[in-house]
Amino acid sequence: MEAPAVDHLAAERKKAQFDVEAMKIVWAGSKHAFDVSDRMARIVASDPVFRKDNRTTLGRKELFNNTLKKSAHAWKRIYELHLTEEEASQFRIFIDEPGYGDLHWGMFIPAIKGQGTEEQQKKWLPLAYKMLIIGCYAQTELGHGSNVQGLETTATFDPKTDEFVIHSPTLTSSKWWPGGLGKVSTHAVVYARLIIDGKDHGINGFIVQLRSLDDHSPLPGIVVGDIGMKFGNGAYNTMDNGVLRFDHVRIPRDQMLMRVSQVTREGKYVQSDVPKQLLYGTMVFVRQTIVSDASKALSRAVCIAARYSSVRRQFGSQDGSPETQVIDYKTQQSRLFPLMASAYAFRFVGEWLKWLYNDVTDRLRANDFSTLPEAHACTAGLKSLTTSVTASVMKDGIEECRKLCGGHGYLCSSGLPELFAAFVPTCTYEGDNIVLLLQVARFLMKTISRLGSGKQPVGTTAYMGKIQHLMQSKCDVLTAEDWLKPSVILEAFEARAIRMVVNCAKNISQFPSQEEGFLELSADLLDAAIAHCQLIIVSKFIDKVQEDMQGRGVKEILQILCSVYALSLVHKHLGDFIATGYITPKQGALANEKLRSLYSQLRPNAVALVDAFNYTDHYLGSILGRYDGNVYPKLYEAAWNDPLNDSVVPDGYHEYIKPLLQQKVAAARL
Amino acid sequence: MEAPAVDHLAAERKKAQFDVEAMKIVWAGSKHAFDVSDRMARIVASDPVFRKDNRTTLGRKELFNNTLKKSAHAWKRIYELHLTEEEASQFRIFIDEPGYGDLHWGMFIPAIKGQGTEEQQKKWLPLAYKMLIIGCYAQTELGHGSNVQGLETTATFDPKTDEFVIHSPTLTSSKWWPGGLGKVSTHAVVYARLIIDGKDHGINGFIVQLRSLDDHSPLPGIVVGDIGMKFGNGAYNTMDNGVLRFDHVRIPRDQMLMRVSQVTREGKYVQSDVPKQLLYGTMVFVRQTIVSDASKALSRAVCIAARYSSVRRQFGSQDGSPETQVIDYKTQQSRLFPLMASAYAFRFVGEWLKWLYNDVTDRLRANDFSTLPEAHACTAGLKSLTTSVTASVMKDGIEECRKLCGGHGYLCSSGLPELFAAFVPTCTYEGDNIVLLLQVARFLMKTISRLGSGKQPVGTTAYMGKIQHLMQSKCDVLTAEDWLKPSVILEAFEARAIRMVVNCAKNISQFPSQEEGFLELSADLLDAAIAHCQLIIVSKFIDKVQEDMQGRGVKEILQILCSVYALSLVHKHLGDFIATGYITPKQGALANEKLRSLYSQLRPNAVALVDAFNYTDHYLGSILGRYDGNVYPKLYEAAWNDPLNDSVVPDGYHEYIKPLLQQKVAAARL
Ligand SMILES: Cc1cc2nc3c(=O)[nH]c(=O)nc-3n(C[C@H](O)[C@H](O)[C@H](O)COP(=O)(O)OP(=O)(O)OC[C@H]3O[C@@H](n4cnc5c(N)ncnc54)[C@H](O)[C@@H]3O)c2cc1C
Ligand SMILES: Cc1cc2nc3c(=O)[nH]c(=O)nc-3n(C[C@H](O)[C@H](O)[C@H](O)COP(=O)(O)OP(=O)(O)OC[C@H]3O[C@@H](n4cnc5c(N)ncnc54)[C@H](O)[C@@H]3O)c2cc1C
Ligand SMILES: [Ca+2]
Repeated sequence: MEAPAVDHLAAERKKAQFDVEAMKIVWAGSKHAFDVSDRMARIVASDPVFRKDNRTTLGRKELFNNTLKKSAHAWKRIYELHLTEEEASQFRIFIDEPGYGDLHWGMFIPAIKGQGTEEQQKKWLPLAYKMLIIGCYAQTELGHGSNVQGLETTATFDPKTDEFVIHSPTLTSSKWWPGGLGKVSTHAVVYARLIIDGKDHGINGFIVQLRSLDDHSPLPGIVVGDIGMKFGNGAYNTMDNGVLRFDHVRIPRDQMLMRVSQVTREGKYVQSDVPKQLLYGTMVFVRQTIVSDASKALSRAVCIAARYSSVRRQFGSQDGSPETQVIDYKTQQSRLFPLMASAYAFRFVGEWLKWLYNDVTDRLRANDFSTLPEAHACTAGLKSLTTSVTASVMKDGIEECRKLCGGHGYLCSSGLPELFAAFVPTCTYEGDNIVLLLQVARFLMKTISRLGSGKQPVGTTAYMGKIQHLMQSKCDVLTAEDWLKPSVILEAFEARAIRMVVNCAKNISQFPSQEEGFLELSADLLDAAIAHCQLIIVSKFIDKVQEDMQGRGVKEILQILCSVYALSLVHKHLGDFIATGYITPKQGALANEKLRSLYSQLRPNAVALVDAFNYTDHYLGSILGRYDGNVYPKLYEAAWNDPLNDSVVPDGYHEYIKPLLQQKVAAARL
Repeated sequence: MEAPAVDHLAAERKKAQFDVEAMKIVWAGSKHAFDVSDRMARIVASDPVFRKDNRTTLGRKELFNNTLKKSAHAWKRIYELHLTEEEASQFRIFIDEPGYGDLHWGMFIPAIKGQGTEEQQKKWLPLAYKMLIIGCYAQTELGHGSNVQGLETTATFDPKTDEFVIHSPTLTSSKWWPGGLGKVSTHAVVYARLIIDGKDHGINGFIVQLRSLDDHSPLPGIVVGDIGMKFGNGAYNTMDNGVLRFDHVRIPRDQMLMRVSQVTREGKYVQSDVPKQLLYGTMVFVRQTIVSDASKALSRAVCIAARYSSVRRQFGSQDGSPETQVIDYKTQQSRLFPLMASAYAFRFVGEWLKWLYNDVTDRLRANDFSTLPEAHACTAGLKSLTTSVTASVMKDGIEECRKLCGGHGYLCSSGLPELFAAFVPTCTYEGDNIVLLLQVARFLMKTISRLGSGKQPVGTTAYMGKIQHLMQSKCDVLTAEDWLKPSVILEAFEARAIRMVVNCAKNISQFPSQEEGFLELSADLLDAAIAHCQLIIVSKFIDKVQEDMQGRGVKEILQILCSVYALSLVHKHLGDFIATGYITPKQGALANEKLRSLYSQLRPNAVALVDAFNYTDHYLGSILGRYDGNVYPKLYEAAWNDPLNDSVVPDGYHEYIKPLLQQKVAAARL
């Protein structure tokens, strides 16, 4: 950010006890990453085509048309500027508007890459890369989402013509939700039940052309449209999530994605020797990007709330001097600072997931599948936890930040309503968060049951190897200060997680069958899975803080954030920690005491800590979160842009208001 | 509801173990209340002017115009149908659209009633009742909300002309937020700083005319407009929350609201002998209506989620038989059923608050002010708690219900996004929830500090009289069954609340001053205030269940709901209960075990329990929550109404999509 003309937050910025520029690099991941994202953000912000401030007043059609315009312009700019893949991806992020490109680049292409044969990749990827075709990912149906095996769309092999016949046999088999499907996509990867000679071979993916490449009209047998308005103004309504029905649509046999299984010319269904787990690789990738989205969304909300809480004053003035900044209230701090710490925590665990993805990819290449189940469970859990926190299942994230801004947070110009509405579906897509956590729980039950057999748990479950110790040990905290030791924190989270997991396993064993027990106790299993995932995030934060770091005070303030993250969880889940017998109520009270004093240490650094995200005002899209803190004049100015202010006397006055005000007779009995 | 043509939920309805018709009466409060609300709901539902299903696609102007139309039509219908005040109020509720009338009836008129002299009431109320003037409540300013004493607008007495000069001296003094102000109100009760002869007499209310009654144009010196888009589609954007600036606007002296203090012709400021606490009466009234709004909003969300969870099936089919209804999953139950129980709990505590308001009013008439502070704290706390739960600060309400509906909950046609967006500001208006809870906490600190002095705590704080017992006793639960005893539940909540309050008081006393301690420990004080408010709700639920009740199984199922409400809180706040030493981890586990078995008992009654709310499909406004469960065909049908589906090929195709698809040269390096 260049120095702004006014800076109402200058005094706050002076208070910072660490080097903000150095922290920007830490947040970005590297100097290079910082430079790229800084440059891309500025280019986008300065381009009038990409303005966002009018988005919430646009009708659906104008809104959508505007997104199409932005997408075309982005494509053009990326070309003209000769951006690298890394740069282009950042560029798209800063445009900050859901659109068909997200699915084309993020799901259609990866599906072909992951599930297509080399030949198929050679044929389709160049077309997709050049956007000579635009694709989407059509899995979910009106009646079927989480349970992919229950999809009803059929793909029946016709040996006479060497084709598949794609068909929607029921209303509930209509494809429903795919992004980019409704109005834009020319192609889709369609998931359908493969039928050969009357036999059902389960769900497979097929590349299906939907629209003519000449005039964009739907091909014969295809009904396609948009599924209608979604949560919020602007928000995800820029996306054409679609509905799609097939009436016996024929595609050539070679449009089934055949990397894992094939259908031969004769209609034989053959499994290749590529293991199915390969597909996990893509999931790890996609979920890792969602964790990164969560840290972005949460950090944006926190940035807005922190800056506005420093501008906003309320109460506490005796003598005409300014009132108290609301960020100085302990309740404000106890709501805001744990979320700020979470934003950092999610950022670091997101970086670590990138490493994990690369590790998984390397191992797959070397035919080592041993860590896949653990990596898969780990990403499922982290996707679920980070999106839930950000979108507020377990603890409010963006919404809490909105409420921290009092009444003004409810205005669209605060940016927070749209941020919330656009983010919440991440709790549902790419796996419903509850369904994912239950998968994590199943994995944990399996891991614990195998401990006896000498199989060493790997990766993020390695701590379970210390089960004997963790089941017996007790927390040795004597003073509030003790809670600052990473080893103390780590063991507390490990002990809590493993004890909850062991409790669940014990309770399940009381039931006639493992499955029955699992179903009956699934609410408790969720809690155990959450405890395990929180441990992962805490431990990655601790690892991060132990790295070498440049810059005055950077390491110290990150240590504080790490402690705030961990201790606020101890406070919130105190029941778990005490009930499992690892900590005493007294130790819990000490944790809370420490937390309070950490808030005081964070306070002078609050604004600088959100400056370190290096978000432009364009990307933040919030008057309350403006870098210069010049909130009130800009709020006032923005109000007058509302369509209702086109005229002083509203349109309906003569028809609907005047007749009331000028009734000649007393009209009512009331 | 008449029997629908299809009823996909018939099997669910047959399972119910209680008399739904009798429960409808219990929910409504009485046979009479049921009849009135049932009749009003049907009239509104059958009137095409009041349709809501197109609301989320309307642009701001059309949307607002439509609300004006509905308001005028409502006024006409209420007159034509000769509705009583009770009927008219229900009628307005079922129209279910925020509008200027809410503030006119709900704030402007009550302010004049509560703060105006008899003479003023005689002059202004008839005009307002007949809607010959339309008024709003203009307190909040751009820079000042929670801290009313910090308002900047001035009302300076001019003895020469016997007038007040109303003025906005700064930008931050602009009135900002008042509902109905932007486009409709002709008058406002304006809160301003009274200045006489240079001396500041604090904040007082003034009746100010804003617009000409001839042509609706703003009067000289007045700038007024709408503050712009708010959270969500449709939702609260039907309301013209406004901005207002005064440039030395003159009003006659008799337009200051003078019930509590007066300015004489000579410019003397006089306090009348009416105690200021009188004003608490209005607050108790308004907050009680908000608690009732919370129970409505939460019950609507729960109704939608319960019905859809019974329609929706996912997983669990081996042999082509239907999949499992998602309501049969324990995780779904553990998320849904506590909210269902909360909806009932809030409904009953809301009914009780009506009683409290009448009791307060009677006492005021008899000059008995003794219970006012307790009643005031109690309503502040209950307003905060019920709206927070419903809107998701402490535990998700409407949003959790939306997520319970998976992907489809994200569609506007589910009704849930709009319900959420329209409800959330209740957490902020009529007192920011955190600020209110801190008031409760202050009151609790005061109450506890006076216990020694022999002053007996009254009303909802009466339990504090048993402090000795509650500080020492231990929970005597031995089996899961024991948790069903009301006395056990009640003492657990009493002991937890008082111990948290006492802890806070003790910790505060360690600080140099009471005030410093209060500020420093305010996050803990919030927790204590919440514990106290939860106790109130639990105890009113228990009282309700102990009343005589008609109808097969009604009492039994309410007992189950009451236990679910209480035990789910025990589970959620286990840390409090154990850390204060009242219950053991073992007893906590028994509570959880009992909770699980209660879920199984609730399960067959779930749909009938939401049918008992007697909501029409119009009022619910949700395809997922349709009474007949005919979800999929109706979702499919509704999608085609989106403006984007006006044409198969979208408007922007030629300009923004075709150029991409038909690029002659490979455009990008990517
Ligand atoms: C904005 C958005 C974009 C999307 N984009 C795409 C896309 O591009 N392509 C595509 O194919 N799909 C897309 N989807 C669909 C998305 O993937 C599904 O909505 C998601 O998989 C959840 O499935 P569902 O809606 O069927 O939920 P359901 O499974 O019906 O969930 C309903 C409830 O049942 C519960 N539940 C379900 N199964 C179980 C179980 N076994 N145990 C316990 N509880 C259970 C859930 O927790 C939830 O509370 C999108 C959805 C949204 C909202
Ligand atoms: C939809 C809507 C309708 C409204 N309608 C009207 C209307 O008709 N008329 C009208 O006059 N006003 C109206 N309002 C304004 C509303 O009453 C105020 O927004 C509300 O009083 C909160 O004040 P605030 O916005 O100043 O919040 P702030 O007080 O600025 O709150 C910001 C943050 O500071 C915290 N905070 C503030 N003080 C303290 C403290 N002492 N201790 C700890 N934390 C503190 C809050 O908890 C919050 O987190 C409306 C608002 C909305 C959103
Ligand atoms: Ca709109």
